[in-house]
Amino acid sequence: MESCTAFGLLCLLFAVTASVAVKYEPNWASLDARPLPPWFDEAKVGIFLHWGVFSVPAFESAWFWYYWHNKQQDYMNFIKENYPPDFTYADFAPQFDASFYDPDYWADIFEDSGAKYVVLVTKHHEGFTLWPSNHSWNWNAGDVGPKRDLLGELATAVRKKKDIHFGVYHSLFEFYNPLFLQDQQNHYSTQDFVKSKTMPELYELINNYKPEILWSDGDWMAPDTYWNSTHFLAWLYNESPVKDYIVTNDRWGQGLYCKHGGYWNCKDKYNPGKVLPHKWENAMTIDRKAWTYRRAITDQDVLSLHEILTFLAETVSCGGNLLMNVGPNKDGRIIPIFEERLRSFGAWMKTNGEAIYKSHPWHTQQDNATIGTWYTMRKSENITAVYAIVLSWPVDNTLKLLAPVTQTSTVIEMLGMPGKELKYSKGINGTIDIAFPTVAPNQLPSTDAWVLKMTNLKNQNVYKRPDFVDQANVVPLDLRPKP
Amino acid sequence: MESCTAFGLLCLLFAVTASVAVKYEPNWASLDARPLPPWFDEAKVGIFLHWGVFSVPAFESAWFWYYWHNKQQDYMNFIKENYPPDFTYADFAPQFDASFYDPDYWADIFEDSGAKYVVLVTKHHEGFTLWPSNHSWNWNAGDVGPKRDLLGELATAVRKKKDIHFGVYHSLFEFYNPLFLQDQQNHYSTQDFVKSKTMPELYELINNYKPEILWSDGDWMAPDTYWNSTHFLAWLYNESPVKDYIVTNDRWGQGLYCKHGGYWNCKDKYNPGKVLPHKWENAMTIDRKAWTYRRAITDQDVLSLHEILTFLAETVSCGGNLLMNVGPNKDGRIIPIFEERLRSFGAWMKTNGEAIYKSHPWHTQQDNATIGTWYTMRKSENITAVYAIVLSWPVDNTLKLLAPVTQTSTVIEMLGMPGKELKYSKGINGTIDIAFPTVAPNQLPSTDAWVLKMTNLKNQNVYKRPDFVDQANVVPLDLRPKP
Amino acid sequence: MESCTAFGLLCLLFAVTASVAVKYEPNWASLDARPLPPWFDEAKVGIFLHWGVFSVPAFESAWFWYYWHNKQQDYMNFIKENYPPDFTYADFAPQFDASFYDPDYWADIFEDSGAKYVVLVTKHHEGFTLWPSNHSWNWNAGDVGPKRDLLGELATAVRKKKDIHFGVYHSLFEFYNPLFLQDQQNHYSTQDFVKSKTMPELYELINNYKPEILWSDGDWMAPDTYWNSTHFLAWLYNESPVKDYIVTNDRWGQGLYCKHGGYWNCKDKYNPGKVLPHKWENAMTIDRKAWTYRRAITDQDVLSLHEILTFLAETVSCGGNLLMNVGPNKDGRIIPIFEERLRSFGAWMKTNGEAIYKSHPWHTQQDNATIGTWYTMRKSENITAVYAIVLSWPVDNTLKLLAPVTQTSTVIEMLGMPGKELKYSKGINGTIDIAFPTVAPNQLPSTDAWVLKMTNLKNQNVYKRPDFVDQANVVPLDLRPKP
Amino acid sequence: MESCTAFGLLCLLFAVTASVAVKYEPNWASLDARPLPPWFDEAKVGIFLHWGVFSVPAFESAWFWYYWHNKQQDYMNFIKENYPPDFTYADFAPQFDASFYDPDYWADIFEDSGAKYVVLVTKHHEGFTLWPSNHSWNWNAGDVGPKRDLLGELATAVRKKKDIHFGVYHSLFEFYNPLFLQDQQNHYSTQDFVKSKTMPELYELINNYKPEILWSDGDWMAPDTYWNSTHFLAWLYNESPVKDYIVTNDRWGQGLYCKHGGYWNCKDKYNPGKVLPHKWENAMTIDRKAWTYRRAITDQDVLSLHEILTFLAETVSCGGNLLMNVGPNKDGRIIPIFEERLRSFGAWMKTNGEAIYKSHPWHTQQDNATIGTWYTMRKSENITAVYAIVLSWPVDNTLKLLAPVTQTSTVIEMLGMPGKELKYSKGINGTIDIAFPTVAPNQLPSTDAWVLKMTNLKNQNVYKRPDFVDQANVVPLDLRPKP
Repeated sequence: MESCTAFGLLCLLFAVTASVAVKYEPNWASLDARPLPPWFDEAKVGIFLHWGVFSVPAFESAWFWYYWHNKQQDYMNFIKENYPPDFTYADFAPQFDASFYDPDYWADIFEDSGAKYVVLVTKHHEGFTLWPSNHSWNWNAGDVGPKRDLLGELATAVRKKKDIHFGVYHSLFEFYNPLFLQDQQNHYSTQDFVKSKTMPELYELINNYKPEILWSDGDWMAPDTYWNSTHFLAWLYNESPVKDYIVTNDRWGQGLYCKHGGYWNCKDKYNPGKVLPHKWENAMTIDRKAWTYRRAITDQDVLSLHEILTFLAETVSCGGNLLMNVGPNKDGRIIPIFEERLRSFGAWMKTNGEAIYKSHPWHTQQDNATIGTWYTMRKSENITAVYAIVLSWPVDNTLKLLAPVTQTSTVIEMLGMPGKELKYSKGINGTIDIAFPTVAPNQLPSTDAWVLKMTNLKNQNVYKRPDFVDQANVVPLDLRPKP
Repeated sequence: MESCTAFGLLCLLFAVTASVAVKYEPNWASLDARPLPPWFDEAKVGIFLHWGVFSVPAFESAWFWYYWHNKQQDYMNFIKENYPPDFTYADFAPQFDASFYDPDYWADIFEDSGAKYVVLVTKHHEGFTLWPSNHSWNWNAGDVGPKRDLLGELATAVRKKKDIHFGVYHSLFEFYNPLFLQDQQNHYSTQDFVKSKTMPELYELINNYKPEILWSDGDWMAPDTYWNSTHFLAWLYNESPVKDYIVTNDRWGQGLYCKHGGYWNCKDKYNPGKVLPHKWENAMTIDRKAWTYRRAITDQDVLSLHEILTFLAETVSCGGNLLMNVGPNKDGRIIPIFEERLRSFGAWMKTNGEAIYKSHPWHTQQDNATIGTWYTMRKSENITAVYAIVLSWPVDNTLKLLAPVTQTSTVIEMLGMPGKELKYSKGINGTIDIAFPTVAPNQLPSTDAWVLKMTNLKNQNVYKRPDFVDQANVVPLDLRPKP
Repeated sequence: MESCTAFGLLCLLFAVTASVAVKYEPNWASLDARPLPPWFDEAKVGIFLHWGVFSVPAFESAWFWYYWHNKQQDYMNFIKENYPPDFTYADFAPQFDASFYDPDYWADIFEDSGAKYVVLVTKHHEGFTLWPSNHSWNWNAGDVGPKRDLLGELATAVRKKKDIHFGVYHSLFEFYNPLFLQDQQNHYSTQDFVKSKTMPELYELINNYKPEILWSDGDWMAPDTYWNSTHFLAWLYNESPVKDYIVTNDRWGQGLYCKHGGYWNCKDKYNPGKVLPHKWENAMTIDRKAWTYRRAITDQDVLSLHEILTFLAETVSCGGNLLMNVGPNKDGRIIPIFEERLRSFGAWMKTNGEAIYKSHPWHTQQDNATIGTWYTMRKSENITAVYAIVLSWPVDNTLKLLAPVTQTSTVIEMLGMPGKELKYSKGINGTIDIAFPTVAPNQLPSTDAWVLKMTNLKNQNVYKRPDFVDQANVVPLDLRPKP
Repeated sequence: MESCTAFGLLCLLFAVTASVAVKYEPNWASLDARPLPPWFDEAKVGIFLHWGVFSVPAFESAWFWYYWHNKQQDYMNFIKENYPPDFTYADFAPQFDASFYDPDYWADIFEDSGAKYVVLVTKHHEGFTLWPSNHSWNWNAGDVGPKRDLLGELATAVRKKKDIHFGVYHSLFEFYNPLFLQDQQNHYSTQDFVKSKTMPELYELINNYKPEILWSDGDWMAPDTYWNSTHFLAWLYNESPVKDYIVTNDRWGQGLYCKHGGYWNCKDKYNPGKVLPHKWENAMTIDRKAWTYRRAITDQDVLSLHEILTFLAETVSCGGNLLMNVGPNKDGRIIPIFEERLRSFGAWMKTNGEAIYKSHPWHTQQDNATIGTWYTMRKSENITAVYAIVLSWPVDNTLKLLAPVTQTSTVIEMLGMPGKELKYSKGINGTIDIAFPTVAPNQLPSTDAWVLKMTNLKNQNVYKRPDFVDQANVVPLDLRPKP
């Protein structure tokens, strides 16, 4: 590997090219050894889209069918008050019209939000596919409801944008697919469902849409042997058309999450507050109460920008990605309150993104002197900067930090206020005390969170975790599938 | 086998029981050798029911989807004038309400019609199953539309009747099932469709509903090897729960009909006008123009009783069964004009059924002197009768027949006029001339067709075809599956 | 009036023209004095069409709204089982599609049926108008449901036929029109409903569609003074565009029917069994159970042709007209069983119509010797015939009649068997005994009812009621409004 | 009137009671003379709600029917792409479900917004009434769509709140009411529409719901004589149950607005920028593009809080009220982005409301030195304050004003920063220069607009318009109709 050290980027390219020659085996040891395509860690922020037949009742949860079927009272009442007595879940599908679905407009929002990837729920536990699947006849968006390839249109729109990766969510299990229920009754000794639905559909999804992320879910119901996970992943990594850049998560079988697979999602809204020994993602949702659009959503239910930035700081500081969910409605719209949050998030990122994208965890995550201040670091060609994300304006305009150790050459700036170094001094209790600017409110870069960029700190350019290699993105974006 | 000759009926029972031991091989030579369960030939008259999603548009044909998809102008216009631009065939299904479906009332009609079997279309080429199939998720009558097991309810209702057998129609192929289209594109080198839809569904159908007829269709698209026909039939005859009494037809693969399988349907409305060397069935429909209910049906479109009786005479005389189709509507009703035809047919059968049920072809089918007079014969314990079905009242009340040869003891009666022997005499040209009764119109048994029963004809108790053995029905009706 | 005697028809024309000068007063004495336009009595047979929003549920009765609203159990259940909890009657209207409505085809049926007039229910008690009324906004067939002028199209189609008059049914009252309910609560001291709905609508109906019959209903709820009946009728007879040929009935206010107005309908299905001192009509329905189309209709529910002919004989013999109702369905079709009855009725009329059209009651209605034989008579230029309508074939082919008194020159024929005089002789008990023909069944003109035409009876050319003047139809059909 | 001076409140009550004795004549001179009930001027801020059948297509405009009917291309396309060819506007109504309508939640939003009155569109030009009107049968929210009294429920909910007045919008004209079209064709020489729809409906509205505002619209089509306006208003002011507190606007006939009636609305979004000689209202909408909810609404379409506050400052400073419109959707929801604007507006008002409620125009409206600074004034018991509403943070934190003339005792504070007097000094060019506080961003009362309260200005406590009398609200809120 000496030559490698010598040639830098070329070396990496070689390594990756070489890696193609690697043949992954259908077992976790082998599969887990696959390096995560580097673009994913660099992207840091993604958008999650829960959309499906559940967007028609748009009532409380994407698990509508389940709660109704299990006779939860509010669901029972909702149906009883609004539909005829023999109404079934399938009857919702024709009302999923998507008349105002404009995927290019969605892509504009996503671009403006600063997100670097999008994950569309292409088939939730209800089994309805957002693409015209050959294996979900008359229960897909081409035959019933939208009469469009919702997935294909979004993939095309997103890929017109320069800098956004396109991924798909796919549920292994389906609540009430009779073949699944049969397999379940057989204690998963049969695999009729997996063979005639899950697997053919996954192959179709990968081959036809060439996603960059495969976000698996519905894993918890059965072991990975039932789901055929390792064999599928071996194909995905060895032979599929996306083998070089596809990223997957860890939901591939009962008891596997946070252990095996690609990056770790662990449970929903996972936010450990510390660095993990593996790349992870915090999948959370901007509506506090649900992943799907709810017709009864109120202003109060929506996370404020400040809350979202708090999640961002915590997550990125600890080495995670933030996957922010919004639920489009049955008309095919992302409602304005979500759009507003995404765009104002993007405005913040425009100023402060250098502390986020391509950043790494620092040796410290949250400062001990000022709780609510989180660190990231980033190495570029000739400089290493440490960033402090400050979530509350400091009392008396003075921020006290414990983690950074300054030296004479240390420079501290606030992102968005270029050319104005902030004054700092030694505080009591070993802190450095940084003077925040007192300017007119319209001159501040944000009213929600501020980022301090610190360069030339004393001997502190160390990562928390050495396993985060500073890889270049070896599969450049323009090798991605074309629209 | 000597004992057999000795014990008569018991011998037959033994033979059949023994036949269970016969293991049919999955090839046509073996399968064709299976004796037809005798009840079918004795039954003579069945009712066919075309019902499905096509009953919702109820426009011209049960092939609605096909003609529309193939841009036949009238179908295109119908859709354009009545539905939104992105309307799909799947959108018809929710309107298939069956709100007024009363299977017991149907069974009453069937019983009253004199039919001895019923064949329900349980899945036509559209692929929609009238039972809640595990293999047609969200495209079946349990999930969408009726929200009922239309098939199961009818089976139960029909089986409450003493003397009607229950059968199912099943289409091997489905117009637009994407798996079928894929196999087709692969020139039937793949069998994804057959493996994940056709076969599982057929097993489900047989195991769950235990039909007495399996009326196969949709065969012409592909060879029997694609359909897996011989293996399925071997299972059906050897192992299935209905192996002892199930009757099938001949539509099991391209080029096979009128050659292999159970009884012969050959093409639709098959009516050869002569005796065939094999049991056959004339499947025809009471609406001249369609097999499905049509909303635009008129009085003129419906066969008259006289026309139906003509088909009956021709068919039964030549050894066939008559399967009369009516298309129930989306409300779940058999419209009154069909009900009226069935009941008036039944009234005729009540008087004249002895010439039909359990009858056999005679040595002559149609009389040469009086065209429109057809013969059957029937052997009972101690008498053999020949029946002439007369479709037009003879000129001058005198019927001239060539085929029967009378002797002194010959007796000729008209069914429905008991105790009144008809006078007959030798005519010129070798005919016998039979005097028809001149009575008040309300004393005649029918205004449409009359049956002469002739006994003690001279040496004429011979069958046209010796292969029609006079078997007793060895699986008595009360062995049939219980409701 | 001498000149009148001299000029015959011209004289009559003059008389009628002169009658135009008569000014009817808005009181019953004056209005009742208007002579009935003669075409109506001559027509004898009409077709009644109950069609409206009630044809959508098509459940039991045209009074669906009423029974539902009044919580009749079967209606409550029907709604509960099939519709969401807040379903209203207005919600049925959009489903009234009339997609297969072909008024020319209807007109063909009507022509073929032998009916000489048609009465369409243009607005029943539900208040929904079958024409785009200016006074029933968004509750009429132009705005909601069919989106067509159902009335206008039928008027045009019927008027293309040579010999059928077109009439309209109109309900004065509307079950749940809030203005009516208000007036009712005010004990009819207010007339808001009549002024803003009933009257404007009636004027619109008459002025725009120029019907030849105005068949009023819904009268019983309030006195004629509330309904403004006499003033409206005075306008109708004096000034309206149809004043010369319009015919009305007697349903114009509480307690008035069978007393005032035009001809008498009295109650529904009125069939007095005797001659009345006034022209009357028997409005009955071919479905025994309802006036509207019912989805659950069975063959047994439909009157047989023999039953209809019985009503015809009874009615016409007693001076009434027969108005036979059929309920078209929401698709816009007259179902085949109704079509069949109408056409077979028409076939009978083609042979036997001379005993019906333009006939008068004879001095005897039903014969005392053979119950079920009814008489009519008809005078033409130089001959007067008495007709006996025989509803049952006589025992021993011999009909015994008491009423006719024969003389040597008396001739008795059966209609439809031209050139064959029937033999008759004096019977015991003073009857004449007429020998019915014993011919082949296909040579008889009917299997349901037979008409004997008797000419040159002895001194019996007398009417039962002298007030039936032998008027020519002074408003020839070609003066009717053009399509 | 001496005693009046003596008895204070009693005197006022007497005056009002006395005013009841005034009989307004049905002419503008008399009607215009009615004093505006004082609550309206004091309220300053209201919420307008455009809701109706147009909320179902929710496409571009509340005038959907009109633009579609007039073949505007985008509307034509929208219909063509989404609905069957014979779709009518009436067909939208059944989809107006309002399933999630929670009027109490609406009332909470309104209360939280700081608005003091609500104006619900109870019937727009489409003619569909949001209450179960007796005069709009089957075209109202009780019969079709919501099946609820949307108006009544909201009135009840709003009246549970302590301090919000409830008003109704009502359109005199209806686009396609056939009676209106007829009157129009008659050049308004007939009044069928007004007599049978407009007037009865207005009486019903006032008598049943006792609104505090009647916001008339649809006036421009015809002269007030056609609309019967003066007679109706005379009744409203003299006899109606709301005669003491009802407020109306000026849209009562062609050419009348900004001249006659109650307060002036003039044209939509009227914002004159100067004080008018009459009370007026700026009816504007928070969605820049429409008054109705639009399914395609985006974040960018919604006015920012800063824009709304700008309209507020301009409007109130010039003596107007601000009526802010939001369009609820067909589900019965006010979408979160609107809710957010209203609540953040309310938060601003909580701090700054004393500059708005019960304020009066000052002698100057907009300051000449700092454009974008608007004045109000308010007299309370012993103090008169002048308020400057500052819409942009001043450069260098120093606000320069020309209009106020200070003296030694003059005190200037920023609302929301109690106890901190702002420093000011004479500037060059005759301004006073006021130092804005430089504090942490989270200590400022707003980031959008700031209000300075100035007391003890030099001789400047004068109103711009002496006709704004400082009336007490003579009909206390607890005299309002009870829920």
